[in-house]
Amino acid sequence: MSAGVAVKRPKLVSSQAEERVDWKKRRAEKNEAKKQRKEAKLIKQLEKQKQQEAAEKAELEQSQNKKGPAYTVSVALPGSVLDNAQSPELRTYLAGQIARACVVFSVDEIIVFDEQGEDVKSVEGEFKGVGKKGHACIQLARILQYLECPQYLRKWFFPKHPDLQYAGLLNPLDSPHHMRIDEESEYREGVVLDRPPKQGKGSLVNCGMRKEVRIDKQLQSGLRVTVQLSKTQNQESKLCKGVVVAPHVPRTEGGLYWGYTVRLASCLSSVFTESPYKEGYDLTIGTSERGSNMDQSTLSPFKHLLVVFGGLQGLEASVDADQNLDVSDPSVLFDLYLNTCPNQGSRTIRTEEAILISMAGLRQKISAAFSGVSNGSLKN
Amino acid sequence: MSAGVAVKRPKLVSSQAEERVDWKKRRAEKNEAKKQRKEAKLIKQLEKQKQQEAAEKAELEQSQNKKGPAYTVSVALPGSVLDNAQSPELRTYLAGQIARACVVFSVDEIIVFDEQGEDVKSVEGEFKGVGKKGHACIQLARILQYLECPQYLRKWFFPKHPDLQYAGLLNPLDSPHHMRIDEESEYREGVVLDRPPKQGKGSLVNCGMRKEVRIDKQLQSGLRVTVQLSKTQNQESKLCKGVVVAPHVPRTEGGLYWGYTVRLASCLSSVFTESPYKEGYDLTIGTSERGSNMDQSTLSPFKHLLVVFGGLQGLEASVDADQNLDVSDPSVLFDLYLNTCPNQGSRTIRTEEAILISMAGLRQKISAAFSGVSNGSLKN
Ligand SMILES: C[S@@+](CC[C@H](N)C(=O)[O-])C[C@H]1O[C@@H](n2cnc3c(N)ncnc32)[C@H](O)[C@@H]1O
Ligand SMILES: C[S@@+](CC[C@H](N)C(=O)[O-])C[C@H]1O[C@@H](n2cnc3c(N)ncnc32)[C@H](O)[C@@H]1O
Repeated sequence: MSAGVAVKRPKLVSSQAEERVDWKKRRAEKNEAKKQRKEAKLIKQLEKQKQQEAAEKAELEQSQNKKGPAYTVSVALPGSVLDNAQSPELRTYLAGQIARACVVFSVDEIIVFDEQGEDVKSVEGEFKGVGKKGHACIQLARILQYLECPQYLRKWFFPKHPDLQYAGLLNPLDSPHHMRIDEESEYREGVVLDRPPKQGKGSLVNCGMRKEVRIDKQLQSGLRVTVQLSKTQNQESKLCKGVVVAPHVPRTEGGLYWGYTVRLASCLSSVFTESPYKEGYDLTIGTSERGSNMDQSTLSPFKHLLVVFGGLQGLEASVDADQNLDVSDPSVLFDLYLNTCPNQGSRTIRTEEAILISMAGLRQKISAAFSGVSNGSLKN
Repeated sequence: MSAGVAVKRPKLVSSQAEERVDWKKRRAEKNEAKKQRKEAKLIKQLEKQKQQEAAEKAELEQSQNKKGPAYTVSVALPGSVLDNAQSPELRTYLAGQIARACVVFSVDEIIVFDEQGEDVKSVEGEFKGVGKKGHACIQLARILQYLECPQYLRKWFFPKHPDLQYAGLLNPLDSPHHMRIDEESEYREGVVLDRPPKQGKGSLVNCGMRKEVRIDKQLQSGLRVTVQLSKTQNQESKLCKGVVVAPHVPRTEGGLYWGYTVRLASCLSSVFTESPYKEGYDLTIGTSERGSNMDQSTLSPFKHLLVVFGGLQGLEASVDADQNLDVSDPSVLFDLYLNTCPNQGSRTIRTEEAILISMAGLRQKISAAFSGVSNGSLKN
């Protein structure tokens, strides 16, 4: 293969020498030329924008035709990473960095585990009824869920809460399921409205569009649902039509990345044992600067990948604190224990950085595992 | 190659079923067992720590024997990325993220360019005498320089400045040239002290050690210098002995990453034309979601690599604003124009994220280029 190095060279126009000749005249000429160039550029930009819009539309249609990946990717990290931030604002920002890193790499599940194991300081049951988690875990989980929720649904599902005080500082995830009001899409996330549905008709759902959506079923108000909008809509009608589908359908059938779920785990071992997938994770990767060089490893195809990150003290600390684990070397817990950044120039890589770095390295290996080719050479 | 997927499985001890039997008794047993395990673990930890210290020392010695890379890596980005932050604190934090991303991947030069081209709003000459740069550029460059400077030298080179008001929020780079006071190292950064040297003797230098260093030359006070400490030191003496070397020596001869230099460029084209390397950059890479899939490209060996990132509007905006560039398609400026994150799950990747992601992807290709093997298969 080898696309090789292209031979194109920068085409640069250096005007330094000329400038020295007659500064005033040159400046007048330049100003005139500049005006003209600006105009020409504006026209070019306009054209480009149109092309881009067309390309985007085509891409969207294409991605809607193609089936999604046949696998899932889960990322686990200790909630204690938040305690590494220096202010409540930066704590919030850090949670946002983690959410974005996971979205960029289309992660399906984020697991926030308690590094303290059983010695938890606070017993809070607020988060989906799960208690016995340190507050950093709950706050991280809450911010992750908040960010994952499409903006137009947040007022329904996220009442004011101190954990979300600085949510205004969070960068948006800009994921495909965060639709703008007039965006066309086969699927949308919505909330079932509190309106008694007419006899024999389904509930009304707010999907963040100008019209409400009548679905096929009668569901409890306040429920978050994934709606597949009917291909043909009556433009005259005051409502849209759609059916409720399972949350995985946009991904598995539409080929769209549809956000992540968030799970709390009371210790490292629960990350493994409480998998939402019936068969559990069939490929598990631990990350550490003391892992083996990732460049020398290949991945086999998998159904459910789990990638686990440590906190300030690394995965060793999580293992040490976990009463259910009889080992002290984290590497024995995983199929692969990888150094994803050999020859790092800093003595330590922060967890939020390690997620981006590791997932960038693994992305290539995952696609190689499923395409049967690794970097152009046939996989053995 | 192909470490393959190891067959080790997580060894988890699930105690859920037992717990239900006799809660009280079980708890007492557990508490006793817990105490014993804690003790055993502490001992293990102690052992581990000792091993680790030994390993680190060996590694340091090894890295000091090996020669450094035969090439340099430069990263360029527009200073305007700072304007994308929502508060002065986050602006500072963002600058720190960029510095850390570059250090993690041992970048030798960071170039901050002005995306506005000639239409600059502010003409400031404060930064090393270079004027005509928008303030975001100068602030980013200043914070990058501040962070690169070993902590013990900052009071000499970075007087109080509004740009550094929130420097306390910055995460340290933790790079090898940021020595702790008692750390042993062949090389150290220092500042020439304002003490009249004795006749026939060299100047005194503060290298952040308990003793001052007498160098071989008489240099002007206030100069930042790289010092190679003599292998044998007289323990009785009140001074250490060393010689001044070029700043690249720790890297090229000691094999240590020794931080980055910072350069301001008044427009995108100056990034190329004002290279500090006589021969210029011999491999240039532009980054964009509209670039070609990086998985399909290989790198050839190079001397001076340049990787360029765009701002909020991408490299197109930088090209459009640059009066010296007659093109509108950025890809023609570079040897390679790469999408470093194919199938991204977010509509946009932020520049600070793109640096980590792109350099993680390129790291593998760079090491493949120089080892003659690409992921275990011979390069063609
Ligand atoms: C601050 S680091 C932990 C550093 C800790 N002192 C140690 O020795 O593990 C936080 C996490 O980032 C990840 N990480 C850091 N460097 C890594 C590397 N080179 N390869 C893979 N993961 C890394 C690991 O998940 C690690 O637990
Ligand atoms: C916010 S993005 C620019 C987005 C802009 N709308 C565009 O279309 O180019 C900022 C920078 O991140 C880098 N970047 C973002 N996504 C990338 C990708 N998939 N591959 C390579 N670089 C990317 C590029 O350098 C880009 O200029």
